[in-house]
Amino acid sequence: MSQHLLAQIQSPSDLRQLDIAQLEQVAQEMREKIIGVVAVKEGHLGASLGVVELTIALHYVFNTPDDLLVWDVGHQAYGHKILTGRRDQFETNRQKGGISGFPKRSESVYDTFGVGHSSTSISAALGMAIASQLKGEQRSHIAVIGDASIASGMAFEGLNHAGVTEADILVILNDNAIGIDPSVGALKTYLTAVKEGKNPKQNNMIKSLNFAYSGPVDGHDLPTLIKELQRLQKVKGPKFLHVITTKGKGLLQAEQDQVKYHAPGKFDAATGELITKEESHLPTKFQDVFGYTLVELAQQNPKIIGITPAMPSGSSMKYMMEAFPERAFDVGIAEQHAVTLAAGMATQGMVVFCNIYSTFLQRAYDQVIHDVALQKLPVIFCLDRAGLVGEDGATHHGVFDLAYLRCIPNMEIVAPLDEVELRQLLYTASLGLENPIAIRYPRGRGVGLEWKKPFQKIDYKKGKVLHQGSDIAIISTGFIGNNALAALADFDLKEKVSLYHFGCVKPLDEVLLHALCKQHRIVITLEDATIEGGLGSAVAEFVTTHDYQLHVYRLGIPDAFVEHGTIAQLQELCGISPMAIQQFLRTLLEQFA
Amino acid sequence: MSQHLLAQIQSPSDLRQLDIAQLEQVAQEMREKIIGVVAVKEGHLGASLGVVELTIALHYVFNTPDDLLVWDVGHQAYGHKILTGRRDQFETNRQKGGISGFPKRSESVYDTFGVGHSSTSISAALGMAIASQLKGEQRSHIAVIGDASIASGMAFEGLNHAGVTEADILVILNDNAIGIDPSVGALKTYLTAVKEGKNPKQNNMIKSLNFAYSGPVDGHDLPTLIKELQRLQKVKGPKFLHVITTKGKGLLQAEQDQVKYHAPGKFDAATGELITKEESHLPTKFQDVFGYTLVELAQQNPKIIGITPAMPSGSSMKYMMEAFPERAFDVGIAEQHAVTLAAGMATQGMVVFCNIYSTFLQRAYDQVIHDVALQKLPVIFCLDRAGLVGEDGATHHGVFDLAYLRCIPNMEIVAPLDEVELRQLLYTASLGLENPIAIRYPRGRGVGLEWKKPFQKIDYKKGKVLHQGSDIAIISTGFIGNNALAALADFDLKEKVSLYHFGCVKPLDEVLLHALCKQHRIVITLEDATIEGGLGSAVAEFVTTHDYQLHVYRLGIPDAFVEHGTIAQLQELCGISPMAIQQFLRTLLEQFA
Repeated sequence: MSQHLLAQIQSPSDLRQLDIAQLEQVAQEMREKIIGVVAVKEGHLGASLGVVELTIALHYVFNTPDDLLVWDVGHQAYGHKILTGRRDQFETNRQKGGISGFPKRSESVYDTFGVGHSSTSISAALGMAIASQLKGEQRSHIAVIGDASIASGMAFEGLNHAGVTEADILVILNDNAIGIDPSVGALKTYLTAVKEGKNPKQNNMIKSLNFAYSGPVDGHDLPTLIKELQRLQKVKGPKFLHVITTKGKGLLQAEQDQVKYHAPGKFDAATGELITKEESHLPTKFQDVFGYTLVELAQQNPKIIGITPAMPSGSSMKYMMEAFPERAFDVGIAEQHAVTLAAGMATQGMVVFCNIYSTFLQRAYDQVIHDVALQKLPVIFCLDRAGLVGEDGATHHGVFDLAYLRCIPNMEIVAPLDEVELRQLLYTASLGLENPIAIRYPRGRGVGLEWKKPFQKIDYKKGKVLHQGSDIAIISTGFIGNNALAALADFDLKEKVSLYHFGCVKPLDEVLLHALCKQHRIVITLEDATIEGGLGSAVAEFVTTHDYQLHVYRLGIPDAFVEHGTIAQLQELCGISPMAIQQFLRTLLEQFA
Repeated sequence: MSQHLLAQIQSPSDLRQLDIAQLEQVAQEMREKIIGVVAVKEGHLGASLGVVELTIALHYVFNTPDDLLVWDVGHQAYGHKILTGRRDQFETNRQKGGISGFPKRSESVYDTFGVGHSSTSISAALGMAIASQLKGEQRSHIAVIGDASIASGMAFEGLNHAGVTEADILVILNDNAIGIDPSVGALKTYLTAVKEGKNPKQNNMIKSLNFAYSGPVDGHDLPTLIKELQRLQKVKGPKFLHVITTKGKGLLQAEQDQVKYHAPGKFDAATGELITKEESHLPTKFQDVFGYTLVELAQQNPKIIGITPAMPSGSSMKYMMEAFPERAFDVGIAEQHAVTLAAGMATQGMVVFCNIYSTFLQRAYDQVIHDVALQKLPVIFCLDRAGLVGEDGATHHGVFDLAYLRCIPNMEIVAPLDEVELRQLLYTASLGLENPIAIRYPRGRGVGLEWKKPFQKIDYKKGKVLHQGSDIAIISTGFIGNNALAALADFDLKEKVSLYHFGCVKPLDEVLLHALCKQHRIVITLEDATIEGGLGSAVAEFVTTHDYQLHVYRLGIPDAFVEHGTIAQLQELCGISPMAIQQFLRTLLEQFA
């Protein structure tokens, strides 16, 4: 058998010239390619390894890009990218200027729909299918969705609509019993029974939604997959194929520890061993400050509850799930349910920490307004991965939260400067608040404080002066304030600049604002959130309401989607890195000198 | 049988003293009460008539308020209110200062969870049930949810979680095959088959989610309902009762025209005949301007598509559904799906008008960001019922949209002053835009223009001067601008006041803004949206960025939830009625004279 078949595939049409044995070889080479690149460049490993055969079968059977293929979430689309003209660029995956870690319309005609958040594929593919029908165009429309994603409400809505259409849509359930963490919920239990042959009626649930159901089939059996897809290609109307795959397939360690190898960081491509960094000297992650502190609080107060929608590992809620399994809940990819569940618990006096990534709280916006804030239930939202998240890119930056939460009555919004403030905020909130509160903190490590301080109630609504100067007042909120501290640290003109930390964006500390407006000529706001509607807007509102004749410069995320790159690169791009802040201060001071 | 049993019931404990025959009489009297009051005071009729027996059975069997009963949406809770101490207040339903049209925690201990938006009841009741379990408290937790609401994704998320718990939760499906409009989707088709005995396995779908399923039972058969509820009261874990009811039960016309009698306005309590107002002289509703214009546009352009999530009547999408059934879609209560479906269609070049009430777009916020705006797909969002909606109250006001949309890159946001501008905006958008756009307009009637003008492309990003004055500039957006016009009409100092209509909130017409900032001493912004984050914030940002030393007064919805009342009453309360605006102007002018 000739080597390097994969190297000859410029597009799926090349793939379609091969025979089954050659396709099997392509599968082997694709696994090696994915493992080889991700081992060095990092990225999402397990999901793409699990769908190597499915990816090849789909592009082999269907006439992509004329047939429209939508990958849900997109963690699993590396093989798809490699087959569709991005083999050589794959080394740039998730790097600034390189290809995205997710399918993206602007990147390739084969990427029919940009993804990142889960459970959109059925709706998108159905929209395409209905459009094709109306235009009288014959083509297939395929949504590939995992078992964790299909349990999210939005996917059900898509199935429920598709089932009453005659649209040519094929939904492929990539059932590996795991999302990022193991799948949960009654549907998962049901699918497991189907797989194990324990449900004699097979998949009645899907049939009851009027889909032609087939499967389960072995997702690593290429000839079977091809045959079944060829058969389904000719079936009219909505159809559903249940495919069983193994996440991490082909790399032993990835199969055995699927959570860790979802996105394992660097590892040895030959042995699969993780290349563990010496981390003991590094600052603690905010996630762990949250996770460990919550366990301590839960030990003291039996009314404390933790909720995560499918992110026990990422959020470090797993520590509470281990320590207090009866009081910590992974509800699956179900942010809407997570928030209203929290509200229901709060009506009964429970102290609920609902931990959701900032970008995913967008999924439960109405529930925050309608079920929590309107009823003034003191749910404690912990918004993880607020601000720029780095390599996950435009779909995942948690930059809208200040704007979309600030307009909600009763909500309090806080953003700690460091690990200790996060810890004391969690403690203070656990004592019982009058209002719902959102505590936003970034992805990754803090500043390196000894954070395990004794608990102390803090007056979190009060701003603080971090540095006193004369002309310019920087008003910052959250972790990004450390960039301003760094900017000032070695700044020769720092005596002209004050720096204030407003841990509380809502309500604003108006006493301090009045004082600083009187003492300075220029105000700069600094936030790792959109400058439309966030802290900067709040300060502009204040300044124009109280007739301070001050220029307000708003530093933050500009009115554009920010792509992927390291967090430092993206902060530079947005003008909120330490260096960018220092340069901005210098220019201002020269201008007004 | 003694008359006026209902009059003696102060709380459900009184109900529990009665025998079955007496309960039947209570049912009869309750129907009369609901019909009698709603006939005169208006409100939601059909849903409450349909659950009279169920309401009585629930409060009879369960020990409310210790047992926790959650009504989904809450249109059907009038009987519940009448039985739980609000019989005499029922006449004040939906009036300012009166009781809410929905269950509301602050109103009664029997209202365990505030509702208004659909599909929250399962999550809320599950949260309560888990809390009870943790506290070691024995009580029942019941969610009553309609067949339209249970098809929404959030309800599925709740079921999916509940099914793997041992929580004491009873989900009652109130299956009347209709929401506000007839139910749609594959689940509805399935439930219909179950009801008609055509599904021999009965409700396997629910069973597959690990619920103990029972039913379907006749929801108007009180003895059977009571018996079944008494049985279920003793069943452990998650259980599901399928109840068949008739919306509008007991009033012939309401049973026969369930859409019209959902909220029929005034009618003759004895005959059921609607008291039709002479409406030909009244201005056209914005909804009809939308609905009829869309049909005209669809006639001209085969790529035009209409989508509504369960509001074909309310939004007037029904006209397009009648004229072009293959291009107009009611997707059910599935806002998330609606938006991503629209995005999928837009990728294929369709011109999609996605009509969603402003308050319900909150349900699809992430999809607007992630699926539409990030991909810059030119979906045309028509945000109906933007601003204060009146009697539906706090859950339904569409006042957050300016703030939550303004922070999204690529989004354009417009708000027409009147019917003609709405029409021309729809036309202009239909020609194909570069960006997604949100067109927000209010509930109800316009200003009475001859709106059926020939189509004309408009430069919607340009602001307009409506009245030129000297000192104060009012910057208004949308229909509320007519209140400013009215305030100026008979104002003796009007030569001192300019009025600008900014139809486009994003992007702002900065040329006009610069000009007006130079020409005036004071700026007032006027919007029927939250003053945190909306037009007022945008203007404050502009003023402080460009160093205009101007006071900016922001008129709009203050930072508090606004309750129910007429729109005029609520505008007065918020200080945006014509009279309030005039008084505000007078005070300002006196102050600065």
